[in-house]
Amino acid sequence: MTFNEVRKDYLLDRWVVIATERGRRPTDFAKQERSQAKTTVCPMCPGNEHMTPPALLVYLKSGSRIRKTMDEGDTRHKNWLIRVIPNLYPAFSPPKNRISSKQIMKNANLAMAVGHHEVLVESPNHDDGPANAPIPQVVQVINGYIDRLRDLSTRPYVRYVSIFRNHGLEAGASLSHAHSQIIAIPFVPQTVKKEMDASRKFWKQEEKCAFCDIIEKERRGPRFVLENSKFTVFAPYASVNPMEFWIFPRKHESSLLDMAQDEVKIFAETLKTCLTRLKMLVNDPPYNFGFHIAPDEETRDSYHWHLEVYPRLAIWAGFEKSTGVYINTMTPETAAESLRKNVST
Amino acid sequence: MTFNEVRKDYLLDRWVVIATERGRRPTDFAKQERSQAKTTVCPMCPGNEHMTPPALLVYLKSGSRIRKTMDEGDTRHKNWLIRVIPNLYPAFSPPKNRISSKQIMKNANLAMAVGHHEVLVESPNHDDGPANAPIPQVVQVINGYIDRLRDLSTRPYVRYVSIFRNHGLEAGASLSHAHSQIIAIPFVPQTVKKEMDASRKFWKQEEKCAFCDIIEKERRGPRFVLENSKFTVFAPYASVNPMEFWIFPRKHESSLLDMAQDEVKIFAETLKTCLTRLKMLVNDPPYNFGFHIAPDEETRDSYHWHLEVYPRLAIWAGFEKSTGVYINTMTPETAAESLRKNVST
Repeated sequence: MTFNEVRKDYLLDRWVVIATERGRRPTDFAKQERSQAKTTVCPMCPGNEHMTPPALLVYLKSGSRIRKTMDEGDTRHKNWLIRVIPNLYPAFSPPKNRISSKQIMKNANLAMAVGHHEVLVESPNHDDGPANAPIPQVVQVINGYIDRLRDLSTRPYVRYVSIFRNHGLEAGASLSHAHSQIIAIPFVPQTVKKEMDASRKFWKQEEKCAFCDIIEKERRGPRFVLENSKFTVFAPYASVNPMEFWIFPRKHESSLLDMAQDEVKIFAETLKTCLTRLKMLVNDPPYNFGFHIAPDEETRDSYHWHLEVYPRLAIWAGFEKSTGVYINTMTPETAAESLRKNVST
Repeated sequence: MTFNEVRKDYLLDRWVVIATERGRRPTDFAKQERSQAKTTVCPMCPGNEHMTPPALLVYLKSGSRIRKTMDEGDTRHKNWLIRVIPNLYPAFSPPKNRISSKQIMKNANLAMAVGHHEVLVESPNHDDGPANAPIPQVVQVINGYIDRLRDLSTRPYVRYVSIFRNHGLEAGASLSHAHSQIIAIPFVPQTVKKEMDASRKFWKQEEKCAFCDIIEKERRGPRFVLENSKFTVFAPYASVNPMEFWIFPRKHESSLLDMAQDEVKIFAETLKTCLTRLKMLVNDPPYNFGFHIAPDEETRDSYHWHLEVYPRLAIWAGFEKSTGVYINTMTPETAAESLRKNVST
């Protein structure tokens, strides 16, 4: 009898049991068909721009140049590369009038979901998510994230901007056109806050960034996935999802706003490579990804931005939901070994 | 513009946005068929006991009496009511030799998943989960939980016993025969620990149980579901799932082990009533439930056991997974209003 291993996250008080044998348990449920998009009018496809609210930001192809505009005006239907639109079903909404951060916090004791909820349409081509789109298109998507992050960060009532992507119905996407979401909220969310607090504590004690330390260890170890001049990718030590991987800038950067344009291009390549490998390895699985970004100047030295990618290859059930302890049926070492292989597309 | 509401859990540092409009967002994914069980040999059905390891506990019908035994012996295949068997694909496994709690913690620094992982087969009838089975059968299931909890709690390496149920493939069940699971682990899991710490702090300050206080408030409010002589059911203020409800003993009890037999019967009735209403209201949805139980004598006064039921009517996506903040598209007040109605079966 060998015991399964219990692991704790680098910084969070989050525990996972790595139980590989559980991956072999049989099921008597019939295999479910993967969800398919219906043949219906897609509100995100070109020509249907009238089905969405006016864009907050559009990148237009203008000859060989790219023009950024907030006013679609007559340009609707014409040669856009990405569109950012308000989410018609927002979780967080902006205040109607000019209102200071202090006023909102004082009046509502943070109980109002004040903020923004936007959708970034990643391509005029329905299926061109980061695994399918050409690199220049992925670059525009990342540029779109950065532009919206910069803009939303200046609002006085915004304390954090979450940028994330849901791929597939099973991952919570309701529309199948390639898109990401951006939610700006009036507080720093728990997971980021706890990571921030732990890394700030580490910084005070060790006078270095905890994440820089983690990257340096993981890039030489069995969970290493890939590295290039700007980014390191590895499967985290206490992965709570099979095939989970994190992408970090090698240089200490606390926010996406720190990225130079050459870095953006290499980030787009890194993202595309990793997501293509995931797609090829496990038959285009549903996944979520989310950026973790330092929310303010105070955490500039101690926090290191990164992207966490969570493939949905398992279901969190009663044990996970009621205890907060996770069971992962794949070791991150095995995940990394698979993801290291350069799968031909 | 009315804002969505942000709510914090009673005790946990867990936040949820109640965003009812989001429930109306359209989808272009084709509706998925609900998973069906395949016609295959069920290892939990009577006659197939040889397909599972020998039982750890069996309740046998012996005339009008119920006999409990750990030795199935010749009794296999005969008139059992419930069977508790080791999980063939355990997340936690018992040590081979006698080993003290101290030794395990010293040797392995808690990194070994030492413990137990058991399956409680709830009925000889394949579909007789708590919403379908007659009350006396549900009573035996609860008695089975209590017997296993009592036994497992005495092991020196066990610090917590999690009792939970997954209903439906989408809720993480791999087999469709009515069953629960029991996992005994060598540490107190995060969610329970945080609830425990917060309620102990409350107890020290207020000299009363935080949960007794919550029950007293909720039983008079808009989130109240039902009450009988022994139990109160309500939808929690910061529900993270649509239709979530919690069942509490009205009297201060820290563990299932405190229940008298008349209480067990009333708990079985309460559970059956609530799960039947859920089943009728939303077409037998997948769900998880998990007990929260005080792990030791120290928390006897401050912790109040309860059952949390999580219907799976929504998907936690990139935002929830990367931030730890939840979006719930149904107010617990609406959920409670639906669950209060006595739906005829």
